[in-house]
Amino acid sequence: MKELTDRIKNNGRVLGEGVLKVDEFITHQVDPELMDAMGKRLAEVFADKKITKVVTIEASGIAPAVYAAQALNVPMIFARKSKSLTMDEELLTASVYSFTKQVTSTISISRKFLSAEDNVLLVDDFLANGQAAKGLIELCQQAGASVAGIGILIEKSFQDGRQLIEDMNIPVVSLARIASLHDGKIIFIEEDA
Amino acid sequence: MKELTDRIKNNGRVLGEGVLKVDEFITHQVDPELMDAMGKRLAEVFADKKITKVVTIEASGIAPAVYAAQALNVPMIFARKSKSLTMDEELLTASVYSFTKQVTSTISISRKFLSAEDNVLLVDDFLANGQAAKGLIELCQQAGASVAGIGILIEKSFQDGRQLIEDMNIPVVSLARIASLHDGKIIFIEEDA
Repeated sequence: MKELTDRIKNNGRVLGEGVLKVDEFITHQVDPELMDAMGKRLAEVFADKKITKVVTIEASGIAPAVYAAQALNVPMIFARKSKSLTMDEELLTASVYSFTKQVTSTISISRKFLSAEDNVLLVDDFLANGQAAKGLIELCQQAGASVAGIGILIEKSFQDGRQLIEDMNIPVVSLARIASLHDGKIIFIEEDA
Repeated sequence: MKELTDRIKNNGRVLGEGVLKVDEFITHQVDPELMDAMGKRLAEVFADKKITKVVTIEASGIAPAVYAAQALNVPMIFARKSKSLTMDEELLTASVYSFTKQVTSTISISRKFLSAEDNVLLVDDFLANGQAAKGLIELCQQAGASVAGIGILIEKSFQDGRQLIEDMNIPVVSLARIASLHDGKIIFIEEDA
């Protein structure tokens, strides 16, 4: 998506260790118009898949997910990274290992919000090693829900996430695919979602 | 806002200890159309205030804040509850005491995103004792930014939050004001934002 790749070129910043910082418009400060456009684009790609729910994980996934859900006219659910005081019901839970933080955390969704009738579009801001996506897929599977696909804003194609998800026969659509971040330079895979 | 109070009547649920659960449409599962309407309503109320940024706190504040920011045509910033790996810059930080969890946590915003030129609208899903709002106000003050007001979806008017904020001469606008939650019954303050 040219709007996104242009913005990454202009406002993204490469830190060491393959980290791309997009805190000016996605992960900390948010550009609502760009988010709306990205959510609509993901909804468009999955428009014929009879999606019943959009599922993401707090916090950076919420903005793109809510716009995608709005365009698909379905509810959005955000998985919690910690148990909330008011989550008294039965929970779907999965463990997510973070390579960067080297810790395993538990993500959860109230069981009442997902069922075998659901056909889910997963949305997240980044796809790197795919561990968060894998955790969200596990939550859906526990509920017996189908996962129609995963829509990603920025994919680090030099990491294993896409392969991991595609090996589960789940389609991955990324609005920007990054081939490498060597020497502080952002190289995109030139293909447009 | 009738759309919200109706929804609370239909889908809200009172737990013990003055807790109102709205996880079907705000805090866990999200209704995008209602969020859009609420964000637009808050934007409308503050339309003539020359707002330059909408500021909220992760995670439940993000959806209403991004719609309010979009309607005001300004960026949205969400304060982080924990330090992110890629937050390498100077941070504005404030301590927030949670009465329910009885712990103090640190919230932060990168200093580069707020300046003395900014006129901020704060947005959050709940106003109860006002500690989160107070923390967000402190972050803005550290940056020298003005706080034009705070827009809230659901105010628990039987707690001290509104008084605390109004004592700082900051206008509070809440789309639904709850007078009490006694005996599992939701009583609204009948006044419409």
